[in-house]
Amino acid sequence: MNAVPPNSASLIAALAGMLSDGGLLTEAEDLVRYSRDWSGDHFGRPLAVARPASVEEMSALMRHCHAERVPVVPQGGLTGLVGAAVAADGNEVVVSLERMNKIRSISPIDFAMVVEAGCILEDAKRAAEANDCILPITFGAQGSCRIGGNVATNAGGFNVLRYGMTRDLVLGLEVVLADGRVWNGLKVLRKDNRGYDLKQVFIGSEGTLGIVTAAALKLFPGPTQIETALVGLRSVEDAMALYARARRGCSDLLTAFELILRGGIEITMREGKDFPDPLAEAYPAYVLIEVSGGGLINLKDMLLSFLAGAEDLVQDGIVASTRAQAERLWLYREIMVERQGRGGRYLRTDVSVPISKLADFVTDALFELKQARPDALPVTYGHVGDGNIHLNVVPPEGMGAEAIEHLFEQAEAEIFAVVDRYGGSISAEHGIGRVKQRAFLERIDPVTLDLAAGIKDAFDPRHILSNGRILASASALDYR
Amino acid sequence: MNAVPPNSASLIAALAGMLSDGGLLTEAEDLVRYSRDWSGDHFGRPLAVARPASVEEMSALMRHCHAERVPVVPQGGLTGLVGAAVAADGNEVVVSLERMNKIRSISPIDFAMVVEAGCILEDAKRAAEANDCILPITFGAQGSCRIGGNVATNAGGFNVLRYGMTRDLVLGLEVVLADGRVWNGLKVLRKDNRGYDLKQVFIGSEGTLGIVTAAALKLFPGPTQIETALVGLRSVEDAMALYARARRGCSDLLTAFELILRGGIEITMREGKDFPDPLAEAYPAYVLIEVSGGGLINLKDMLLSFLAGAEDLVQDGIVASTRAQAERLWLYREIMVERQGRGGRYLRTDVSVPISKLADFVTDALFELKQARPDALPVTYGHVGDGNIHLNVVPPEGMGAEAIEHLFEQAEAEIFAVVDRYGGSISAEHGIGRVKQRAFLERIDPVTLDLAAGIKDAFDPRHILSNGRILASASALDYR
Repeated sequence: MNAVPPNSASLIAALAGMLSDGGLLTEAEDLVRYSRDWSGDHFGRPLAVARPASVEEMSALMRHCHAERVPVVPQGGLTGLVGAAVAADGNEVVVSLERMNKIRSISPIDFAMVVEAGCILEDAKRAAEANDCILPITFGAQGSCRIGGNVATNAGGFNVLRYGMTRDLVLGLEVVLADGRVWNGLKVLRKDNRGYDLKQVFIGSEGTLGIVTAAALKLFPGPTQIETALVGLRSVEDAMALYARARRGCSDLLTAFELILRGGIEITMREGKDFPDPLAEAYPAYVLIEVSGGGLINLKDMLLSFLAGAEDLVQDGIVASTRAQAERLWLYREIMVERQGRGGRYLRTDVSVPISKLADFVTDALFELKQARPDALPVTYGHVGDGNIHLNVVPPEGMGAEAIEHLFEQAEAEIFAVVDRYGGSISAEHGIGRVKQRAFLERIDPVTLDLAAGIKDAFDPRHILSNGRILASASALDYR
Repeated sequence: MNAVPPNSASLIAALAGMLSDGGLLTEAEDLVRYSRDWSGDHFGRPLAVARPASVEEMSALMRHCHAERVPVVPQGGLTGLVGAAVAADGNEVVVSLERMNKIRSISPIDFAMVVEAGCILEDAKRAAEANDCILPITFGAQGSCRIGGNVATNAGGFNVLRYGMTRDLVLGLEVVLADGRVWNGLKVLRKDNRGYDLKQVFIGSEGTLGIVTAAALKLFPGPTQIETALVGLRSVEDAMALYARARRGCSDLLTAFELILRGGIEITMREGKDFPDPLAEAYPAYVLIEVSGGGLINLKDMLLSFLAGAEDLVQDGIVASTRAQAERLWLYREIMVERQGRGGRYLRTDVSVPISKLADFVTDALFELKQARPDALPVTYGHVGDGNIHLNVVPPEGMGAEAIEHLFEQAEAEIFAVVDRYGGSISAEHGIGRVKQRAFLERIDPVTLDLAAGIKDAFDPRHILSNGRILASASALDYR
């Protein structure tokens, strides 16, 4: 059990004393932007916001919070969408990484960079590009999310099928532990089997085991050729058949393979005449394909030959002939994501199943959803090369808040039941946080829970760090 | 502290009772092949050898050993070379995985297979190939090592620069815990962010945290083109400059980039007329390059163009025009490894440094070695695309056993001191086991040790599993 935070005034004085100028925010208006996440769906007022400007400040802060049993929650760009970094209302000190945002080093020879946790992903990506490299973590929120959050949530995105999840890109970490000690695991070695690989424990732990303050990340050669196509297909099944062939035909040079069902394309088309139906006819399923590489092979030829050899599957398609055309094709994907909720709330899911079962999963999940809630509008898209689908649900226009809540609960239960049937995951990319916690705990087996609780107890014995995320609140042990 | 094993006779009767026919070996002659590792350098007589044939038998065995505080050491193919799987002489029950060697499933659509821990790597690779896929863990011992050992040691090898370490290829694990409970983390999902990724804790833990009984592994499309070249270069520096260009020029299709110094080539040449000097002249450094991919690009053209564009670095070279020629080029590498010790003992090192520092590291380490021990013969080769070098040391012919021991100690200390100077790792691929333990503990910081000990205590509270590997013996906690 966490103690109730001690007298707030003395806590605030103590924290202010260990942070450099402007490091502690306590005024209501200053706290607003640390209180609500990117989606706007999740809200929690911090007790205060601490913004350490260095590892030393972070260490002093945590030493104090540990000694006084003050609950803290590290916060990056608030784009995780599962409520992990939003404060438990009025009860937690938010530790923002935003002032630790430097790029400490970058080496194109080592294909590596060392970045502080508060660095915005897009800034890190730009620095890599300035060195003829890429940092291949890529997704919609990249202009807002921060590296520490990417590491803490093991972020996915568009390019996982080529470059892996964030976990696969981490060479080393610097972490401030719950008790304020600094674990220095920063290194750019590509192979290192000295004992337990402790960084793996922190990656994806959603801030519950330590506060990542810097990461050494793998870079890749910046591609000199990028080829993009949008193709229309008869079904999700055909999309998956195309993927199986693309893995072989495109020599591991496939950088993205994004499925969008017709409904998603229609959402973008509502933008008006700049976004006409992208192909001459409408198709049930679309795939956005990207391949990339260096200058000594002909990627355009490869992609065209591949598509020509798949004409039994591909009904129609466009291959972008300029970078601008390619970007326009990607806009069909991006605008759909932004506009899918019509400006209101919608249910996000983020599920995965084995690739071989993805087509059947989509068919079954959409069927069950339609049976249960014919009034709901599903929007279905995803990184299908990874078996990852976002099967989202938009409520009918004009529905009241309470009815929407009920719809979401019902729809999620239907979708998750199908996920369970296919041995899938209810959280492929976004983690558990607080939003997925109930569904997670309902499904977790006691051995897994016990091992997880053992790690939590070893790394954060007083349970002050992101308490109640992933594992249940207060003490993970209470929930065995 | 582990209890001294209880009365051996009653222990043996108990274990025999829970294993199916032939599951327990106790006769001296039966124990021989479980007593000595692949190198012949490391020896330890097991108290008995238990060979469970199923997860259920493994679970019952561990439940008993946990209850009775019997020390056990899981054993795969005994090819790890750091003494992790060899018994503490006369004091441990070896748990051999060899009877759990089935391939449970294989799906080319999921690009995944599920294999039991006792399956020999080469058998798993063949099964993948029969499905037009590859399991890309590749190294000399692949005909002897077993999947469980590959996972437990996070094995590396030739193809890490393209496909990653074993860790990067694991999708899921089944593990029998120290207390006999079964952790079922087997799954072929490619993305799954449900809470802590517990499999990461077991991977690379060298049998100290649980016994891996099965693994779900990533497969890749079987390449339809493989192109191989051997090139001669003026220096290690030029080899690393060539690597930097190859990463860009070869579009991530580089499957191997193996450095061999002239001395290594000469070892193979001693085989006689079948292995002439491979190029018209002798060069200080050689690199074996392999690229691979599918059929829609021209890899031969890519490799030839790449080499033509690097003629400022490449002094001479051969590009294999048949598979047989390619295999012959690889033999220069393989025979060197087999013959480097002239049939006697030699010092193996397995170090890594940042790629940008590898050339300087090799220069400095060879210099220091020559200063300290001009009588020693260094043999230097490695997976330099990963910053990983095996800088081995062969004693002068006719040297006595004690003098050899002294030479090895001195040479290792010299090499490791240079590794330290470059911020490198004293164990890139092979782990710590018992052989590297002293050097490891001398270098480890107290925070790392404390976190590692916390995990050990949480996963194996009675310290019965591979006690004294990685962390010091008896109780990890004693060594803080």
